[in-house]
Amino acid sequence: MINIGIVGYGNLGKGVECAIRQNPDTCLFGIFTRRDPASITPLTEGAKVYKLDDILSFRDEIDVLILCGGSATDLPKQTPELAKHFNVIDSFDTHARIPEHFEAVDASACESGKVAIISVGWDPGLFSLNRAYCEAVLPAGTNYTFWGKGVSQGHSDAIRRIEGVVDARQYTIPVEEAVARVQSGENPSLTTRDKHVRECFVVAAEGADKERIEREIVTMPNYFADYNTIVHFISKEELVRDHSGLPHGGFSIRCGTTGFNNEYNNVIQYSLKLDSNPAFTSSVLVAYARAAVKMNKEGIKGCKTVLDVAPSYISSASAEDLRKRLV
Amino acid sequence: MINIGIVGYGNLGKGVECAIRQNPDTCLFGIFTRRDPASITPLTEGAKVYKLDDILSFRDEIDVLILCGGSATDLPKQTPELAKHFNVIDSFDTHARIPEHFEAVDASACESGKVAIISVGWDPGLFSLNRAYCEAVLPAGTNYTFWGKGVSQGHSDAIRRIEGVVDARQYTIPVEEAVARVQSGENPSLTTRDKHVRECFVVAAEGADKERIEREIVTMPNYFADYNTIVHFISKEELVRDHSGLPHGGFSIRCGTTGFNNEYNNVIQYSLKLDSNPAFTSSVLVAYARAAVKMNKEGIKGCKTVLDVAPSYISSASAEDLRKRLV
Repeated sequence: MINIGIVGYGNLGKGVECAIRQNPDTCLFGIFTRRDPASITPLTEGAKVYKLDDILSFRDEIDVLILCGGSATDLPKQTPELAKHFNVIDSFDTHARIPEHFEAVDASACESGKVAIISVGWDPGLFSLNRAYCEAVLPAGTNYTFWGKGVSQGHSDAIRRIEGVVDARQYTIPVEEAVARVQSGENPSLTTRDKHVRECFVVAAEGADKERIEREIVTMPNYFADYNTIVHFISKEELVRDHSGLPHGGFSIRCGTTGFNNEYNNVIQYSLKLDSNPAFTSSVLVAYARAAVKMNKEGIKGCKTVLDVAPSYISSASAEDLRKRLV
Repeated sequence: MINIGIVGYGNLGKGVECAIRQNPDTCLFGIFTRRDPASITPLTEGAKVYKLDDILSFRDEIDVLILCGGSATDLPKQTPELAKHFNVIDSFDTHARIPEHFEAVDASACESGKVAIISVGWDPGLFSLNRAYCEAVLPAGTNYTFWGKGVSQGHSDAIRRIEGVVDARQYTIPVEEAVARVQSGENPSLTTRDKHVRECFVVAAEGADKERIEREIVTMPNYFADYNTIVHFISKEELVRDHSGLPHGGFSIRCGTTGFNNEYNNVIQYSLKLDSNPAFTSSVLVAYARAAVKMNKEGIKGCKTVLDVAPSYISSASAEDLRKRLV
């Protein structure tokens, strides 16, 4: 049995708790939180909740920690810190800062002799895998990534910070025409605006200036200014009724050529359709938690990404069984 | 530079020759054949052609051999034999016999200290990877594989063996309705007949009994009896004009649930659309040839499948570069 500790009990932590139930070779050792443990009621009856400050006293009982904090402030501190004592998995998803996060975590994990696998999930994660496999098997080609249709929590948060906004939900939507052009093998050049539309459902405070709010959204740099953005004002009730889920998904596509004179076109497409983004990300985290434990038992140490992990490590099946059933 | 030897110069061997041109860190050492070397004209000007019998004298100059023979009789003999002296890659694709092929090759490669990667291509190969990744990240679910639309060389050959048939081409076609049901997340039970249609283009000898030929095709056990099969009789000229290509592709899909009570549906879909099946398979072979060489340099030995190979090994990029660009 693989004893898993969950660090942080938000959507992702709850997702890990659920995913452990689906993997009979794993079990939930406990949940670690910065909050008062008594304030937390786990979904699983009898599950233990501990103070994060006490985690080192469980060093010998836990096989791997899954860190469920955010990439902005939690993980850059927690992952290097906890990799000094535990095998760890995180879903660090600030793409531009992955190299520096890797270096910090690698230093800790090499010193402790543990395995840390960072940036696990679907993007970064399964989409990273597809981009890497595709580039290697079709070197003459182009990768395209489309996200959605799905809720972007970062963009929803950005809208909520605008004065006069009570709540908001933002959907990232791939432009169908752009996806179709890529799928056809045309190898098009696409701008940011060509690829995605952003649709926002906003609850405004009573008496708030909706024109100003809409203007502030659509002109917001980085988040919305480079996109075609649609804003709908709705009631609090409508938001709760129609937009409570966290669905997501997307497409990672490569178009590339083969043949002596690049005469053959090829399209590789990997796509996801997820009812719940955090539940699926958590399920990927648990599979890689298994890999970290298996790799560490073989004497492997240091920081890894999904690209460094052979697929057989994430499976609970034996190598013989995998060869027989899945190769 | 990775020096690659090609063993066998049919469609696959030619494809490997083309793929080497697209990978600047690889070069063609030479082509090895059982035929008279003088009878072969490589696509690449100046490429060397040698007798297969002489291959051992080049043991120190070749980093890896790509074996391009057939799975029925060539590879079961050649792969274990050549793994005694070289790192080797093959595309052994008789799924049911992969375990025994693995054992034979593993014995040779463990003894020689070389790396052999077997069953490389797209199915087995990239589809095997997808099946394994999907099963691990969505343990509560079902895998579905659809092939086509594409030419099945095995089925085309089976038709050609019927008396009165001059030539034939068989297309495997996934049933659109079945694919759509799987894509919707419905998790349907599908029979062999539900999933694929077989469409055959047949050139009959003059005066041959077409009714008998059609009956022999549609009732042929294993190949056609379990499918809805469509037979068209066409002229030799039409076959050459309209059916000379070897396109293929398919879908590897998993539907699975997440959540505390399996309340969320998820669909992962991996699909390929290939203008030339052998050219693409060859391109995958070259990427795994790189992996075999890199792994062997690290002291790894024995037989592997794609499930045992971390994705970073198949890439020509450095780990740092991959983390920066693709994770």
